[in-house]
Amino acid sequence: MAQNLDKIFKPRSVAMVGASNVPSKWGSFLLVNLMAGGYPRDRIFPVNPREKEIHGLTAYPSVEALPEAPDLAIITTPAHTVCGVLEDCARRGITHAVVISSNFSEVGEEGARLERELVEVARRHALTVVGPNTMGVVNAAHRFYAVGAPVMLRPGNISFVSQSGNVGANLLGWTMNQGIGFGKFVGSGNEALLSASHYIDYFGEDSDTYLILAYLEGVDDGRSLMEVLSRTTQRKPVIIIKSGRTEEGSKAAMSHTGSLAGSDDIYDAAFRQCGAVRADTSQEMLDLAKSFERLPLPAGDRLGIITLGGGWGVLATDATAMAGLRLAKLDEKVVEVCDRLLPPFWSHGNPVDLVGNIYMETHLAILEAMAASPEVDAMVMLGSLGTGTIIGLNVLVSQNLIMEMSEDSLKSFFTELKDRNVRLLTRAKELMRQYRKPIVFVEMQFIGEENLRDLEAGETVIFTAPEKAAAILSKMHSYRRYLQRKGVDRDWSYLA
Amino acid sequence: MAQNLDKIFKPRSVAMVGASNVPSKWGSFLLVNLMAGGYPRDRIFPVNPREKEIHGLTAYPSVEALPEAPDLAIITTPAHTVCGVLEDCARRGITHAVVISSNFSEVGEEGARLERELVEVARRHALTVVGPNTMGVVNAAHRFYAVGAPVMLRPGNISFVSQSGNVGANLLGWTMNQGIGFGKFVGSGNEALLSASHYIDYFGEDSDTYLILAYLEGVDDGRSLMEVLSRTTQRKPVIIIKSGRTEEGSKAAMSHTGSLAGSDDIYDAAFRQCGAVRADTSQEMLDLAKSFERLPLPAGDRLGIITLGGGWGVLATDATAMAGLRLAKLDEKVVEVCDRLLPPFWSHGNPVDLVGNIYMETHLAILEAMAASPEVDAMVMLGSLGTGTIIGLNVLVSQNLIMEMSEDSLKSFFTELKDRNVRLLTRAKELMRQYRKPIVFVEMQFIGEENLRDLEAGETVIFTAPEKAAAILSKMHSYRRYLQRKGVDRDWSYLA
Repeated sequence: MAQNLDKIFKPRSVAMVGASNVPSKWGSFLLVNLMAGGYPRDRIFPVNPREKEIHGLTAYPSVEALPEAPDLAIITTPAHTVCGVLEDCARRGITHAVVISSNFSEVGEEGARLERELVEVARRHALTVVGPNTMGVVNAAHRFYAVGAPVMLRPGNISFVSQSGNVGANLLGWTMNQGIGFGKFVGSGNEALLSASHYIDYFGEDSDTYLILAYLEGVDDGRSLMEVLSRTTQRKPVIIIKSGRTEEGSKAAMSHTGSLAGSDDIYDAAFRQCGAVRADTSQEMLDLAKSFERLPLPAGDRLGIITLGGGWGVLATDATAMAGLRLAKLDEKVVEVCDRLLPPFWSHGNPVDLVGNIYMETHLAILEAMAASPEVDAMVMLGSLGTGTIIGLNVLVSQNLIMEMSEDSLKSFFTELKDRNVRLLTRAKELMRQYRKPIVFVEMQFIGEENLRDLEAGETVIFTAPEKAAAILSKMHSYRRYLQRKGVDRDWSYLA
Repeated sequence: MAQNLDKIFKPRSVAMVGASNVPSKWGSFLLVNLMAGGYPRDRIFPVNPREKEIHGLTAYPSVEALPEAPDLAIITTPAHTVCGVLEDCARRGITHAVVISSNFSEVGEEGARLERELVEVARRHALTVVGPNTMGVVNAAHRFYAVGAPVMLRPGNISFVSQSGNVGANLLGWTMNQGIGFGKFVGSGNEALLSASHYIDYFGEDSDTYLILAYLEGVDDGRSLMEVLSRTTQRKPVIIIKSGRTEEGSKAAMSHTGSLAGSDDIYDAAFRQCGAVRADTSQEMLDLAKSFERLPLPAGDRLGIITLGGGWGVLATDATAMAGLRLAKLDEKVVEVCDRLLPPFWSHGNPVDLVGNIYMETHLAILEAMAASPEVDAMVMLGSLGTGTIIGLNVLVSQNLIMEMSEDSLKSFFTELKDRNVRLLTRAKELMRQYRKPIVFVEMQFIGEENLRDLEAGETVIFTAPEKAAAILSKMHSYRRYLQRKGVDRDWSYLA
């Protein structure tokens, strides 16, 4: 049974102890982000003995002077004052706190002493404390952004614990750019009391969280983490990026959070045993998040590839083999459709090379045949989304050479091109639902990053390289196999 | 001595045999792209017996009827007519041709027969022929876009030969999005006469080409390729992505271009021996292109890392070790600067953790000290560009909560933020020139892909993950070592 952290993530009111009008201070950052995020202003109580009003809110001179005991105190005062503030909180009936303040164990012996004192105070008063030295807490659904970075997330069901504030904040920033939906975030900071395992455990039982991400540098209590992971991964995927993989990185982690990183091989084995999905890079973590969010898990390792041209098919085939997946056999029905729609010299095998065929009907028919085939577990389509753009730009240029196009006709032209792509993606979503097989798109050109995100619309996955698609599908397949071994008899996925 | 291909890449006039008014035909694509690219219209001669005018240009009924013998014929007529067209070209005094037409050896025995005939005709008349089955040829400086994809390149000094038309066209499309400067491109198609080696050789002697890219699936004459690479790589870098790395991929390559891919280990060893830089993925090829284009080569393997926060420093350290690079020692002067500008508990080692310090002066001072240090061969800065955005967004949000900002003040606000970043990048460029050491930036958040490209301005390199930075710098260092082993006593780089 996980510790209940609802008051941390869903507080009905918060005290901001150390709130400030000075823009460069954390006490200002935090308050501004909280207000900008849409948390009700009348539920925020700034505490600052030297101010009457902070960013338009009435300030209180002390925790004692608060008109009520809020669910949560967010503390940004200097390190040496924090224990006193926690004592004040306990006296005022506040049971939960987020200690943003730094200068604790991360800066040496004096800080470590303060941190031990903090632990002692918290234990004595049975306080639940995040941090110290944390970037903060977010709950997008609750419009609660108690965090030192100006993020504004697309609400979703992915929750994320990070042992590094800057990695956490940066990855959140990336998810904004990529349109990935987010639920809760917490920077675990120095983990004086609550550790990454506690948050993973809580997210595991949180019905709003479908998928958990973790950035870890080191773990003091490996056994607890493994226990938590084991019970969590059978309910929902846990995707972990673990740094300190090399001896050098491990030393850097020690100097950063003081954590003993331990041997990477041990982590690797532990994660595998517990069914956690390990991301190799920070970008891969986001790709995994997006894919687990939007795609069903592949039931097997047989990949069907449809490519607009042969070269990308070769690269995709390499990527498939290197990711440990197999090329699916084309069954009679797929071959029949290809024979009917492609020139006689078509590849007669997987990858199916469309040899530049630009008719959307052809793309759709082959995709549908593959999706229906019992030989195929997952599909990758390369270049199909771009074809519209290629034809489009050519026609456009040609039109422009001949006559001036009106703004309206230009607009309708581009709408038509987008419609073409939307049609393909919509059909792919239907097929994924119908056959419970993932379909991912790879688009390597003229569309542009922002337009790709726009086309994805938070519901499909478009990669920009075949290597990524294969690596991600392989990890999704491994997770599916883990579930099968554990007798979890379902395709985990909230696409359904 | 490389074969002179100037008439292919810098023709003073071209015949478009098979030019068409029908938008979906290659004869239209090619002509439209050629015109849109800005090639002089009065130097284009469409040939089509059934049209008087094509896209506004006077059409000629036959090659024979042309008013002059152009430098180059671009042929898009059906395969079975191509040999006849080549005979016509020879008779009319045309010596060079690009055969776009497909349905040759790539489609089976009948096509292979036509291709043998093509070779025979070309040899008999001493014709220089690109293709058949090629995506075409580009020379951005010459405004010559005889290519089936609507690309419009940023003129630069990178030239690219691709054994796959779609991979080639897609990578060109990507370079557009990424602001990478391009010179010449050729899809080598079926390589009936001219092979990838010929183009690399030509690019090697081409004074406008500073850097060569190649996408290879398979090579018939390995010895020639190695000879060409050996003499080319001492003059300029050759970056190769070689597909068919796995047995499966190799089979796919065979079915695509009919080429025997050969064992990947052999290629790997050959590339290493000849000093070619091998890209592992298509995206890495672009990252390498950009980095070789804009950065001096690192003289050694000692990396200095400056990071806004510890977490990214740990990831960067892992990446450094995994890429086979070392963390540089901080010499006295660097330590002195850090002692002066950072809080006493600063990391006292590499990576230098700025612990969230947002003052640009601090970032610049530490960067300058590292650049000047004899212990450091290359530098990575993580998060520095983003700080402006973080502060900026916070202040902005805070301002907005307090008062409405006018459009003007908003604009000047964002200009100021951009200026901050531009200042850092400008100083980095100066330092790179002064010390001949590469400085790369890693930015993982709020800035957005398009703004990153905008900030790079084609002159610096900003990655979105530390893993990429380390891998690229490592490959650049290997190339530098190759040059040193060969006694090439200079830092190859056209930054100077």
